[in-house]
Amino acid sequence: MSTQHGRYLALTGGVGGAKLALGLSKILPPEQLTLVVNTGDDFEHLGLHISPDIDTLVYTLSSECNPETGWGRRNETWQFMQALKQLGGETWFNLGDRDLAMHVQRTRLLRGGETLTGVTARLASALDIRHTILPMSDDAVRTRVNTADGWLDFQHYFVREQCAPAVTGFEYRGASAAQINPAVVKAVRVEQLAGIIICPSNPFASIDPILALPGMRALLRDASAPVIAVSPVVGGAAIKGPTVKMMRELSLPQSASAVAAHYQAHTPGMLDGFVIDRLDRHCQAEIEDMNLAVQVCPTVMQSLSDRICLAEHCLEFLQDLRRTDQARR
Amino acid sequence: MSTQHGRYLALTGGVGGAKLALGLSKILPPEQLTLVVNTGDDFEHLGLHISPDIDTLVYTLSSECNPETGWGRRNETWQFMQALKQLGGETWFNLGDRDLAMHVQRTRLLRGGETLTGVTARLASALDIRHTILPMSDDAVRTRVNTADGWLDFQHYFVREQCAPAVTGFEYRGASAAQINPAVVKAVRVEQLAGIIICPSNPFASIDPILALPGMRALLRDASAPVIAVSPVVGGAAIKGPTVKMMRELSLPQSASAVAAHYQAHTPGMLDGFVIDRLDRHCQAEIEDMNLAVQVCPTVMQSLSDRICLAEHCLEFLQDLRRTDQARR
Repeated sequence: MSTQHGRYLALTGGVGGAKLALGLSKILPPEQLTLVVNTGDDFEHLGLHISPDIDTLVYTLSSECNPETGWGRRNETWQFMQALKQLGGETWFNLGDRDLAMHVQRTRLLRGGETLTGVTARLASALDIRHTILPMSDDAVRTRVNTADGWLDFQHYFVREQCAPAVTGFEYRGASAAQINPAVVKAVRVEQLAGIIICPSNPFASIDPILALPGMRALLRDASAPVIAVSPVVGGAAIKGPTVKMMRELSLPQSASAVAAHYQAHTPGMLDGFVIDRLDRHCQAEIEDMNLAVQVCPTVMQSLSDRICLAEHCLEFLQDLRRTDQARR
Repeated sequence: MSTQHGRYLALTGGVGGAKLALGLSKILPPEQLTLVVNTGDDFEHLGLHISPDIDTLVYTLSSECNPETGWGRRNETWQFMQALKQLGGETWFNLGDRDLAMHVQRTRLLRGGETLTGVTARLASALDIRHTILPMSDDAVRTRVNTADGWLDFQHYFVREQCAPAVTGFEYRGASAAQINPAVVKAVRVEQLAGIIICPSNPFASIDPILALPGMRALLRDASAPVIAVSPVVGGAAIKGPTVKMMRELSLPQSASAVAAHYQAHTPGMLDGFVIDRLDRHCQAEIEDMNLAVQVCPTVMQSLSDRICLAEHCLEFLQDLRRTDQARR
């Protein structure tokens, strides 16, 4: 394991991003890694405040994550859902008995006036997580998906409709009035910043909501350290979730290059480098033509060592980019 | 099983009262029996609206009740509570995984604007209960207990402190501004009314909150059919709960007679008869001296047939009282 200096920031959504975040957390001690999480797919359900991406990250980092699904808790039971169904309740969003404690406790603390940042820190700490997990904002941002069936709240699209409706666009409701989490601003502007990693999460549903916060694009563009993104698309397929299906429906090419192009078009100047899988080596020249350095390495994370390996590749890539930058000056 | 005519009303709290209510429901078809439930020990906990007495009655009538405790659901699991404890949540009030569905669904429906009466009907119906269960009021009444340690919310006294503090008095907060459930008024004033039964529930914590509603005492006193109460005290002990401990702390004799005296003193003219156990036969004369008819029968309900047997004794007693009343006219 390489010894790293400086501080790193990782921007992440749920399952795929959380895998890389776990890898990073195994290399970098808590004081060197801050995780910034999408809250655009947070929602109110059954009177509870549910933060799916925060939960996935918290469960992943605490080894509580269900290894079969990538979300939810291991050794989960479903007595609550069965009883709710019997009572005629809404059962399209699965809430395990153990998982439910997270939502009930979060909701209670939020209603008591704590910020989502404070609540997240407290719940992560209760599960012995020592790395800092920061919600992108303490204000509500709600990702909505425009589809052939009309606008849908993200979880309605994602879980209830199982991503079936064809996507025509996105809206990050509330984003323009939301404030970036001040702790995120601080973490980006820290003197020892050594790099920022955009995890292999869905660009439209997990990363764009973060970038939609006023000032976020400029903050990342002006960061004193390089910014890289890891492609969530490998060999023309998404490892997990609807990324590729969305790209097809949005008439985008379904490739790693198209993800790079999306970030370059919507957030020019943010990225310094892009990480692609060896399967996508043929995309390298095309992405380099976008003025991005390219790292080619295994990006499919099945085992824990895959996660750590990709994390190490990311940190080495950032180190290379820092050196190149210094040589240029 | 005797064939009964007319309509009956039973006023009840939790465990003890629910047992008799179950017995009554086995004799009387839904159109002949209405159950009026105490909501004075309802409370908000973990952001959920919990109605302990309604739940106990609903679970009892639907055969969902945990036979070991008398409250909560059978085949219950406790994954949620364990996870909540791990997250640093409040765990003094036990909420089973299956029971939780009831609180979540009720809370959600109440927040959506439904009345507690409407929600209760809907949830009871989902569990195939055909008898009508009416909360005493759709307005909030909160029983508070004055103790040597100061005022406590009822569940704090009852569950968190396990009834340890010595009781000096009670308050039914909100009662004076609460409206009797209009469906209760209607059920009492119905032409076919054949009798009203006050179940063997705690007089202070389960029945007095119902009687504290403005107009309730007059409504029951002026009912066109006899009103009887079943003593929750048998042989100087309470079958369940803190009734006798409370009586001692309030410097009342710990006897069936003292329960009758309590009702006669605080709600004069309401009761026509009083049901005591055979163990308390020695109290009969004393209670008759209070101008009450007395029925002596087995009142301890262990089996289902005990519950049905006591219910039959109650209905026969009411029939006798109706005959006596007619003979007098």
